[in-house]
Amino acid sequence: MSRGRARAPLPVPAWIARKRDGDELSDEALRALIAGATDGSVPDYQLASLLMAIVWRGLSPRELATWLDAMVNSGDRMDLRRVPGVKVDKHSTGGVGDKISLCLAPLVAACGVPVPMMSGRSLGHTGGTLDKLDAIPGFQTALHPRAFERVLAKTGLVLAGQSPRLAPADRRLYALRDATATVESIPLIASSILSKKIVEGADALLMDVKVGRGAFLPERAQARALARTIVDLGKRAGLRMVALLTAMDQPLGRAVGNACELAEAIDILRGAGPDDTRALTIRLGAEMLVLGGRARTRADGARLIEGAIASGAGLERFRACVALQGGDVRVVDDPRRLARARREHVIRAGASGYVTRVDAGEVGRAMTMLGAGRVNKDSRIDPGVGLRLERKEGDAVQRGDALAVVNFTDPARLTAVRDRLEAAFAVGAKPPPRAKLVLETIT
Amino acid sequence: MSRGRARAPLPVPAWIARKRDGDELSDEALRALIAGATDGSVPDYQLASLLMAIVWRGLSPRELATWLDAMVNSGDRMDLRRVPGVKVDKHSTGGVGDKISLCLAPLVAACGVPVPMMSGRSLGHTGGTLDKLDAIPGFQTALHPRAFERVLAKTGLVLAGQSPRLAPADRRLYALRDATATVESIPLIASSILSKKIVEGADALLMDVKVGRGAFLPERAQARALARTIVDLGKRAGLRMVALLTAMDQPLGRAVGNACELAEAIDILRGAGPDDTRALTIRLGAEMLVLGGRARTRADGARLIEGAIASGAGLERFRACVALQGGDVRVVDDPRRLARARREHVIRAGASGYVTRVDAGEVGRAMTMLGAGRVNKDSRIDPGVGLRLERKEGDAVQRGDALAVVNFTDPARLTAVRDRLEAAFAVGAKPPPRAKLVLETIT
Repeated sequence: MSRGRARAPLPVPAWIARKRDGDELSDEALRALIAGATDGSVPDYQLASLLMAIVWRGLSPRELATWLDAMVNSGDRMDLRRVPGVKVDKHSTGGVGDKISLCLAPLVAACGVPVPMMSGRSLGHTGGTLDKLDAIPGFQTALHPRAFERVLAKTGLVLAGQSPRLAPADRRLYALRDATATVESIPLIASSILSKKIVEGADALLMDVKVGRGAFLPERAQARALARTIVDLGKRAGLRMVALLTAMDQPLGRAVGNACELAEAIDILRGAGPDDTRALTIRLGAEMLVLGGRARTRADGARLIEGAIASGAGLERFRACVALQGGDVRVVDDPRRLARARREHVIRAGASGYVTRVDAGEVGRAMTMLGAGRVNKDSRIDPGVGLRLERKEGDAVQRGDALAVVNFTDPARLTAVRDRLEAAFAVGAKPPPRAKLVLETIT
Repeated sequence: MSRGRARAPLPVPAWIARKRDGDELSDEALRALIAGATDGSVPDYQLASLLMAIVWRGLSPRELATWLDAMVNSGDRMDLRRVPGVKVDKHSTGGVGDKISLCLAPLVAACGVPVPMMSGRSLGHTGGTLDKLDAIPGFQTALHPRAFERVLAKTGLVLAGQSPRLAPADRRLYALRDATATVESIPLIASSILSKKIVEGADALLMDVKVGRGAFLPERAQARALARTIVDLGKRAGLRMVALLTAMDQPLGRAVGNACELAEAIDILRGAGPDDTRALTIRLGAEMLVLGGRARTRADGARLIEGAIASGAGLERFRACVALQGGDVRVVDDPRRLARARREHVIRAGASGYVTRVDAGEVGRAMTMLGAGRVNKDSRIDPGVGLRLERKEGDAVQRGDALAVVNFTDPARLTAVRDRLEAAFAVGAKPPPRAKLVLETIT
């Protein structure tokens, strides 16, 4: 394929028409379109129309494999062969209070499986690992490829952002999809995630596909379809793959916000922290150790992760990584040094009974508007804005008890979101049915 | 509506998402989108994605009426109130050999109904009235609004191109649709046609929706759906409307090409010419006279049109219009003065029997490649390139008889299309069933 050097004009409208009419595109057409997205020779308006046709008609497994391969080869690719072992990454479709990456990666690394992790920023109502890491003074997430490799080789983990030289086709398409309402497509989501993981040098990937009120795809059937597509596509591209469907009806853990979520992840590494966050960390870690060949079974893997918590080996790895990436390690030893917005607002129970609902989607949207996330591309994140759940679903409560404490900066913004935030909580006479955390495993 | 002066950024992605999900857009959203298409404040890539979502999901009657109204009001509008009478235009969805406008407009004008006609250029495999008029030396189709009105007032007809100041939203969307494979949408086609007709000052419109192998929409059900949508939308916008579904399986008449089609239209005005072209001219003319209030019934209208042919009044109107628009009237009196490519190729019958098929689509595509139409935006039309059918479907033929004579300029291009052209013709043992010319009338 002659990327960007085609002489005759490409028949792009005819290709778009094929996809519009539900027909498959040839490998040549798909590679030429991705090459044109990379070098700018296919204009945005043609890509936008094509993307909407793909949202409509989808991509066949063969089309999708070609599309992904062309994206992977659109730019540079990390070479991590000098780091021994099976490199395993984890990717979540995004949740509210999902700080798992921050404690999971050090624990898996401490058990001997290298974790090269390139993360994203907050998107919509869900948080982003990079924004949480920004709460550590000095911490650098924009790493040169050689620095990325060096941190990984020394500590067994690295926590970075995506380099602009990796998968440039994905960068262009991703920005365009956001502006053209073409994000919501399973093949486009699957290929975007996998292109980033393959170019960062991962050999295996654990996908955490969130399901429920606070998830990007709330319906279980959709989440399952995405998980199935990613697992099949990743395997076809040579990765070891596992996907879990996990619950995202209420926020994960007790902290929602950037600095406070980081503090909660450090609590997990210290052997404390909320039960659900600890349980999910152990379960995901066990899967990663199996993927990485360090454990034969999930049970073995879980024991290893629990050991790395108990011994402090995970915390030690995190401290080493923070130090190597320029961060202030004092916040690891004393999370009270992290930012916290000074103003507090307490959400109280209007009745006695049991907490029947803490709507993760509504909590996420309200916290985003308070400054914990981005309303638009120009929004500045306020790391100290956060919410602490004093009660989770199923907890007994007396009228007037605190359900949650909000730390905020701008009283006008609090006024704007207060009703929404209070409406996210419901108290009823009976406890809700006990919810499972891991719903399905897809291999 | 504050066109182009909105202060906050428009939530365009959210609007696109609504349409993508099959929901209706508000009038405010539709007007803001058309305003943004007009002043450029909504970028091409968002319009392209929206257009594909409209191809997918359609527009409801309410959405479509608002979309059309916003397009009509996106620029200037002709004011023809000083020209007395009900102004009636005709629009065809495009066919092969369809020169009807050239003889129809003068005949209707001669019967007392003013015809303000803004036409287009050749598109795909179908011809364009403006390209046929270009075969008249000196003829001006780019008219200032005042000149447009003056020619109409003096001769009862005017044959012009679309002014860039009229319906600028349609111009931008039309160019974008061509490049993004979003032409094929009934609401987008209907609103594009009607916006041009309303701004040109027509009070009534006769739609000739072609059906069959050479039509833009070959299937009758699709053609009927387009006719129904245009008639309903036009009435809602205050126009008198009639649509006919007419056959476009074989080329209309005997001439395909620019100068030769003009000559055939002049033949019709002289009382000669092929039966099908004459019959369709009379039928369409009769409908236009009823729409314009000059005839009570179609039969009355047909008699009036036949009278205008027999008396030469139609020819006289055409000559007057050509003169006023700067054209050389000698070609009207002696069509042999029109361009004709010197090289000839004869397509002969390979067997004896009856002509069972002359595929208008294949003939149109071959003639386009020979220079009678545009392969791309930069193509130059060769007015002298043409084809004359010596036999039409149902005609008896002996092996070796001429089926058609092609006039061409470039032998290499003829070689390239020869097989396609020959394959457009089929001869069988039995005559095909006699085809109707007018299939349905939709009011």
